[in-house]
Amino acid sequence: MLQPQIITLNDLQTTFEEVPGFMVAGVAAGLRKSRRRDMALIVNEQPGPAAGVFTTNLVKAAPVVLDQQHLAQNPDGIRAVVINSSNANACTGISGMQNAQTTAADVAETLGCNPQDVIVMSTGVIGVPLDMPKMTAGVKVLAENLGPCHWLEAAQAIMTTDTVTKLASIEVTTPTGTYTVAGIGKGSGMIAPNMATMLVTIVTDAAIDSVILQEVLSTANTTSFNQIVVDGDMSTNDTVVAMSSGVSGVTVQTHEELVAFTDAMTQVSQSLAKQMVMDGEGATKFVTLHVTGAVDAASARQVAMSIGKSPLVKTAFYGSDANWGRILAAAGYAGVPLDVDKLTLSFATGEQVWTETTDLTLIQDGQVADYQEADAAAIMAHRSISVRLELGLGEAVSTVWTCDLSHDYVTINGDYRT
Amino acid sequence: MLQPQIITLNDLQTTFEEVPGFMVAGVAAGLRKSRRRDMALIVNEQPGPAAGVFTTNLVKAAPVVLDQQHLAQNPDGIRAVVINSSNANACTGISGMQNAQTTAADVAETLGCNPQDVIVMSTGVIGVPLDMPKMTAGVKVLAENLGPCHWLEAAQAIMTTDTVTKLASIEVTTPTGTYTVAGIGKGSGMIAPNMATMLVTIVTDAAIDSVILQEVLSTANTTSFNQIVVDGDMSTNDTVVAMSSGVSGVTVQTHEELVAFTDAMTQVSQSLAKQMVMDGEGATKFVTLHVTGAVDAASARQVAMSIGKSPLVKTAFYGSDANWGRILAAAGYAGVPLDVDKLTLSFATGEQVWTETTDLTLIQDGQVADYQEADAAAIMAHRSISVRLELGLGEAVSTVWTCDLSHDYVTINGDYRT
Repeated sequence: MLQPQIITLNDLQTTFEEVPGFMVAGVAAGLRKSRRRDMALIVNEQPGPAAGVFTTNLVKAAPVVLDQQHLAQNPDGIRAVVINSSNANACTGISGMQNAQTTAADVAETLGCNPQDVIVMSTGVIGVPLDMPKMTAGVKVLAENLGPCHWLEAAQAIMTTDTVTKLASIEVTTPTGTYTVAGIGKGSGMIAPNMATMLVTIVTDAAIDSVILQEVLSTANTTSFNQIVVDGDMSTNDTVVAMSSGVSGVTVQTHEELVAFTDAMTQVSQSLAKQMVMDGEGATKFVTLHVTGAVDAASARQVAMSIGKSPLVKTAFYGSDANWGRILAAAGYAGVPLDVDKLTLSFATGEQVWTETTDLTLIQDGQVADYQEADAAAIMAHRSISVRLELGLGEAVSTVWTCDLSHDYVTINGDYRT
Repeated sequence: MLQPQIITLNDLQTTFEEVPGFMVAGVAAGLRKSRRRDMALIVNEQPGPAAGVFTTNLVKAAPVVLDQQHLAQNPDGIRAVVINSSNANACTGISGMQNAQTTAADVAETLGCNPQDVIVMSTGVIGVPLDMPKMTAGVKVLAENLGPCHWLEAAQAIMTTDTVTKLASIEVTTPTGTYTVAGIGKGSGMIAPNMATMLVTIVTDAAIDSVILQEVLSTANTTSFNQIVVDGDMSTNDTVVAMSSGVSGVTVQTHEELVAFTDAMTQVSQSLAKQMVMDGEGATKFVTLHVTGAVDAASARQVAMSIGKSPLVKTAFYGSDANWGRILAAAGYAGVPLDVDKLTLSFATGEQVWTETTDLTLIQDGQVADYQEADAAAIMAHRSISVRLELGLGEAVSTVWTCDLSHDYVTINGDYRT
């Protein structure tokens, strides 16, 4: 009789030491005026499967275009991801593309592989040519500093307006061994072309086919990075790339194995996504928005995004004002059918799952509920707040994580370049 | 031989004394804690044609629903518009609708007409019942204070976070006489449910059929109130209503007459719309966005709105930062086809028409143009700036008026209710 396969996911961590099969570095290449780290390199010791999701902005930075080519041509032989901050290499024309290619070639020369085995990511100001002598020199310094445990340095090197590093990892224990899914990310103004592009690299030592890796990455992306909104702007550079070294020898093939791997990838992605929101430019509040009772997931998401993007809703959260009228109004212009008399709105403290976001009901079936303003204010005073809007039209739900809109957001973005 | 009809539009004014056939009042009814005026009444001395355009938000305030009924039932017999500030009568359920009906009935009783001859507008906080004793008493005070020249008092009475009154008028001279198109409006956080609903009443003494009046109002609306964006939020209460007294005896029937009337209505509407943007919550800059070279008007507008709503673009204007990367990125995620290599971006000072927005070209055919940052900064330092983004794909154009996003916007909207 077959033993049932038991796969266990350990608790998610927001730090990690090493991931077998990968070497990493983060150095200061002098791209910034300060001596902060500004280049990172993540190397798979052997060519391996990789996958990516990219910005849907039609104005794409050169590295995004290059990476899409490399992944299409060579999904099973990716060796490295090289990342620079301080310059996005976007809107830089033909020379920008040549510079991205040169960077890939520099890394390839150092590692003894082909340029198309290298993924390039850039974040920073738009429209300014990369300082290629510094980039080329930086790649050499990166290669000299590669080590298995330099993930924190790499996470530091990719920060722009981020105030904290963003790392996440999870261990998966299977009958045939243990593997890790781990990632680093940056992004705090989801998603701001000149400053706060979202860049993520996720690595694993699980043995997985590139086609499956792409499917899992895309799936995880829909419930993580596509589920956050800081200001609604979408970068020219957003990139999430996953690489597998496979050195754990643990395969991802059966249904159970795939479910566990997808769960691990989703947890790591969600953790990084939430870290970005919590570090949102000027953010003082973390808000979990659940829209429930929609006719389908797309319309639930559309309503949640409309609320999450509304400057009026976001400033109300900043002011700790339980201004539910703005939430209903933002739902009302989301562009999906709505029955006001079926709307029920409730708040709770902390990051609740949608079934538990019921500490205080403010609107019941379109009518103001019998609640005390003091109770609403007590919830709004928290650093983390959950909001649930029940549409009463169906069974579909959607969750969006967002933050408030503060004076500091305006300060950061009004003064960024000048 | 027929004399060609000569119709002349005089210069637009942002103030006016009286409009023949109309009486008006603005009083303090005690709805506010302060003694500021908070109720206005505009009376057509005889029942006359009226027209309206209303919020498309699915969460509609009670007065919006009531007004749509009254205009549908009775488009040729409207006597009055009554407006209160400080309370939006939105999300107030069945009693909210009853309160709007009672207000119409109170006005009708005073004027000796039917309740369905009265248009009701409300602006202010959402979800709080109207103070009906004060409203009913206020209607009486309004009736006692009616006079032909109290337009400024009425414009004051409808203000919420507005810092200035908003009036506009234009005189049209025809071979058979002279008529006026004039209006008052309020709105500064286009469009903010709890505070900055856009309310406009336009009156004319031209003799016009209600069907034609509705057509002209709708046409004027598309190139005025639908062409502005402050924060992208859309109110539950937005209302624009036009009334005609017809007492000038000048008819609007022939093609030439209709063109002139439409032009007058458009100029008044555009003036009020721009006054709202200039008085945008916390605004320090007035920005005219022209998107040209689009395949059709809808996609031109979609790109212009995407730029006009972008918090990153708006904070850059606040910071006087010629951050064109954010403009291109906002165009890139507008959801319409775009060819980056065909984009040309230019700036100019003041409110330019699109053909003249070429003082400084920053991007030419997708490449950074040869310009000096100091020249861009000099333009950005102005109080009024025009931006033109040429898409290079067709002939269609769209204009959007917007403002910047400042610290004060956050202050105003973070602290509104509390």
